[in-house]
Amino acid sequence: MKWLEKEIRERGKVVNDDILKVNSFLNHQLDPKLLDKMCLLWYDHFNKNDVTKILTIEASGIALATLASLRFNTKVVYAKKGESSTLGEHYCATIHSFTKGNDTNICVEKTYLTSNDRVLILDDFLATGSAIRGLIDICKQAGATIVGIGTAIEKGYQHGGDSLREEGYDVYSLEIIEHLDKDTNSITFR
Amino acid sequence: MKWLEKEIRERGKVVNDDILKVNSFLNHQLDPKLLDKMCLLWYDHFNKNDVTKILTIEASGIALATLASLRFNTKVVYAKKGESSTLGEHYCATIHSFTKGNDTNICVEKTYLTSNDRVLILDDFLATGSAIRGLIDICKQAGATIVGIGTAIEKGYQHGGDSLREEGYDVYSLEIIEHLDKDTNSITFR
Repeated sequence: MKWLEKEIRERGKVVNDDILKVNSFLNHQLDPKLLDKMCLLWYDHFNKNDVTKILTIEASGIALATLASLRFNTKVVYAKKGESSTLGEHYCATIHSFTKGNDTNICVEKTYLTSNDRVLILDDFLATGSAIRGLIDICKQAGATIVGIGTAIEKGYQHGGDSLREEGYDVYSLEIIEHLDKDTNSITFR
Repeated sequence: MKWLEKEIRERGKVVNDDILKVNSFLNHQLDPKLLDKMCLLWYDHFNKNDVTKILTIEASGIALATLASLRFNTKVVYAKKGESSTLGEHYCATIHSFTKGNDTNICVEKTYLTSNDRVLILDDFLATGSAIRGLIDICKQAGATIVGIGTAIEKGYQHGGDSLREEGYDVYSLEIIEHLDKDTNSITFR
């Protein structure tokens, strides 16, 4: 998607050779029209799969998942981080944040994900794939069918997406970044 | 709004005399069509105010703010909890969670909120008002104008909304709960 590459180049900032900052439109300030345009790409790709639920993770997946759910005409469930006092019986998984360097538990209440669900997993970033694997784990615990995985930006150089594709998952990242260069603030797309 | 009262009665669960659980549609599983209907009420009320930005807080305000921003044709900024390694120069405030019993720092990058902004603050719940006051504090630091405060469910018995109204803020809560009774699972609306 040339238009999305252009937005990422113009609005993104290379923090270091690992981290791309896109908080002007994707995960701090949100540009809903741009996000909706991104959701349409997922809709075109995954709509044939009879998606019944969109699953994401708080906080930065929520805006994308919400806008996508209007297109797919489904509900969203976002996995909560940590324990919540109001959460009923739930599925949990542990994910590791490469950026923050810590482990977090994510949980989904059992009522909201069942073996009848055909789940589209959405998130803003796919790097090592730990967050996505946590969501896959929760889907497996629920006996739900995973019909696909959509991410906005995949860090190709961390190979989480490649591993998931090798295992047979339909992973559709709108953009895949092959290389970040802090010195020149340049981004190389796959 | 009789329809929203009905949804809250049917889908909500009184956890105890303080806590109402509405995670079947508002803050874990999301029902985007219902949320969008709620956003239309805020749009009718606040649209005259030339809103330039919607400000909310992660995670449970994001879905509502995103859908509202499509109506208002603005961007959203969501305050981040804790310190983020990729956050540039930012405004911060401390909020206290009555439900969780702890303090949290919330931050907004300075670039995304300025003295030119006319801000609508949105959140899912208004109880003691601590989260909203944190967002007000951040708007004041940025010199932004607060045109209104919209919340989905106000816990009237905790009086955060009443105090804000007394100070002159235009607070529009879609539903105000006066009393929760765990024994009968009953909700009394104002």
